[in-house]
Amino acid sequence: MNERARKKFFKREQKEPAASELAAGIMKGDKTILSRGITLIESNAQRHQEKTQEMLKLLLPHSGHAVRIGITGVPGAGKSTFIEEFGSMLCGRGFKTAVLAVDPSSTVNGGSILGDKTRMESLSRHPDAFIRPSPSGGTLGGVHRKTRESMIACEAAGYDIILVETVGVGQSEVMVRSMVDFFMLLAITGAGDELQGMKKGIMELADAIIVNKADGDNRPKAIKTMREYRQILHFLQPATPGWETKTLACSALTGDGIQEIWEMIEAFVNDTKASGIFDRRRSRQVKEWMLSMIKEKLEASFFQAEEVKRLMPEMERQATAGELTVPAAVDRLFQAFWEK
Amino acid sequence: MNERARKKFFKREQKEPAASELAAGIMKGDKTILSRGITLIESNAQRHQEKTQEMLKLLLPHSGHAVRIGITGVPGAGKSTFIEEFGSMLCGRGFKTAVLAVDPSSTVNGGSILGDKTRMESLSRHPDAFIRPSPSGGTLGGVHRKTRESMIACEAAGYDIILVETVGVGQSEVMVRSMVDFFMLLAITGAGDELQGMKKGIMELADAIIVNKADGDNRPKAIKTMREYRQILHFLQPATPGWETKTLACSALTGDGIQEIWEMIEAFVNDTKASGIFDRRRSRQVKEWMLSMIKEKLEASFFQAEEVKRLMPEMERQATAGELTVPAAVDRLFQAFWEK
Repeated sequence: MNERARKKFFKREQKEPAASELAAGIMKGDKTILSRGITLIESNAQRHQEKTQEMLKLLLPHSGHAVRIGITGVPGAGKSTFIEEFGSMLCGRGFKTAVLAVDPSSTVNGGSILGDKTRMESLSRHPDAFIRPSPSGGTLGGVHRKTRESMIACEAAGYDIILVETVGVGQSEVMVRSMVDFFMLLAITGAGDELQGMKKGIMELADAIIVNKADGDNRPKAIKTMREYRQILHFLQPATPGWETKTLACSALTGDGIQEIWEMIEAFVNDTKASGIFDRRRSRQVKEWMLSMIKEKLEASFFQAEEVKRLMPEMERQATAGELTVPAAVDRLFQAFWEK
Repeated sequence: MNERARKKFFKREQKEPAASELAAGIMKGDKTILSRGITLIESNAQRHQEKTQEMLKLLLPHSGHAVRIGITGVPGAGKSTFIEEFGSMLCGRGFKTAVLAVDPSSTVNGGSILGDKTRMESLSRHPDAFIRPSPSGGTLGGVHRKTRESMIACEAAGYDIILVETVGVGQSEVMVRSMVDFFMLLAITGAGDELQGMKKGIMELADAIIVNKADGDNRPKAIKTMREYRQILHFLQPATPGWETKTLACSALTGDGIQEIWEMIEAFVNDTKASGIFDRRRSRQVKEWMLSMIKEKLEASFFQAEEVKRLMPEMERQATAGELTVPAAVDRLFQAFWEK
């Protein structure tokens, strides 16, 4: 490294703000610093993860008050137009609103969803809105951690409502459901085809099914679709005990029915806070997250251990060839693992 | 311990046959010794598990040739009458047939299914049949191991066909599917009601759906039900690539259609052996079993560690109270775990 490069290197190093500076800026509601904080959260570098924990320790006492809302929908359901309209309405009502995206399938930073902020142009320009594209790929557990920690940062920055958007690919729905208070599914007309493609399981995660594009000529069809969903819901378990899964129709284009969705969510929050279900779910979510994080760490430590990596192919070969029983092969792998 | 008790104790100890004796008896086809071998397999005692592995090491080279068939069905579908009839037909054709049962919900040895051998009275008396009730409860992984190892013992004892029966409770179907070559679902008429209660997921595990009780007045209805299943199957993924899931009707009471089921399975075995799918599935099953066994062992070692048990309640409290982030709580648990 020559002198000039060395200077530049150290200058850059010095410019990186400390965890406490980031936390202070975030708590002041500075969007630029919030963005930098989330970039830190999203980093996979060990050094950054330690700093992240330092920062989060300061932010954590200032988080937890927001209403966390998950949104999913089949492609073509108009999710971004809906979030633009719904988020603008929330900001108009005086709620600071943050939008996070979860897309475990995206491998590049700012991947396939929300990557293009112009998709929500008017919302992104609103002073009370904050929009963040999906974190770069990695394990499902990694994306989970990044999203939960970004949520903490947004809450500490004073956001009242966190919208977590996800794509309709199954695993990510389950993950988002496990970190939000309210989960809604955005649908459109043509329920016959759509229902066939949609897993019943995803309907069972939802606290509300919203049929979008209920405008113009399409409105009667949208209402019919909504009734069909209502029919099917009779046969399914509600996602939240004591809350009958709601069906609504709206138009993100005209704004029809958008206010009503927020009123429904307000009723949900009031009901579940009164019954204690709200807080119990949050506690359970934390415990479940701990559990899944522990499992992922255990597996990583085992399968990435040199001794295990070395022995595994031979154990697999012997077990599939019927030379060794599976329990015996597993025992040998564990011997190698513990002896390391 | 007085002298008499001591003598009795050692006498009993001496009477317990060695692993090699058990293996030799099993390979001779001795049903009583096979039963004792399976009792050893089913024991949770550490000492017995070591002996089990010693025994299985000797049996393993003599296993693997049987056709492994899984059978599930809703309560009332007539599973035991079907297995009685199907098994007797197989024995009549000269196949030595073993019946094992899997019921992770049963907590007592010889629990809720197959516990009463009189349910299959004529089959159990057949010299070429061997019937074994479900192992006593425990973890799903424990039941998995016991069933797979019992299968090895039966195969080494010369059984050509292993029928693995399970109850319709979801998890056990997935487990049985993961250890058999062919999986069939026993159904009855009244498909409307039945389909509603049955998870689509279970239909997607099946290589054949058999509508039982197709006799007398009920026959037309059974044929209709069979056709309804065939319709639904068009929309589902087949369980085995290259094998279209079959629908058949039979009567375990009259024996109608029972031969045809075996002929279908023979065709399946021939087809999948020719295409290589048969062997590839078996290899994959072994690898998947290894993986799930490793995960279970890792979790047991972590959650049963004294240090983790001691620290866990406090970490859970701090995480749910928002005093500590989940990653920080998990880190502390791992520090305690690795330092032990």
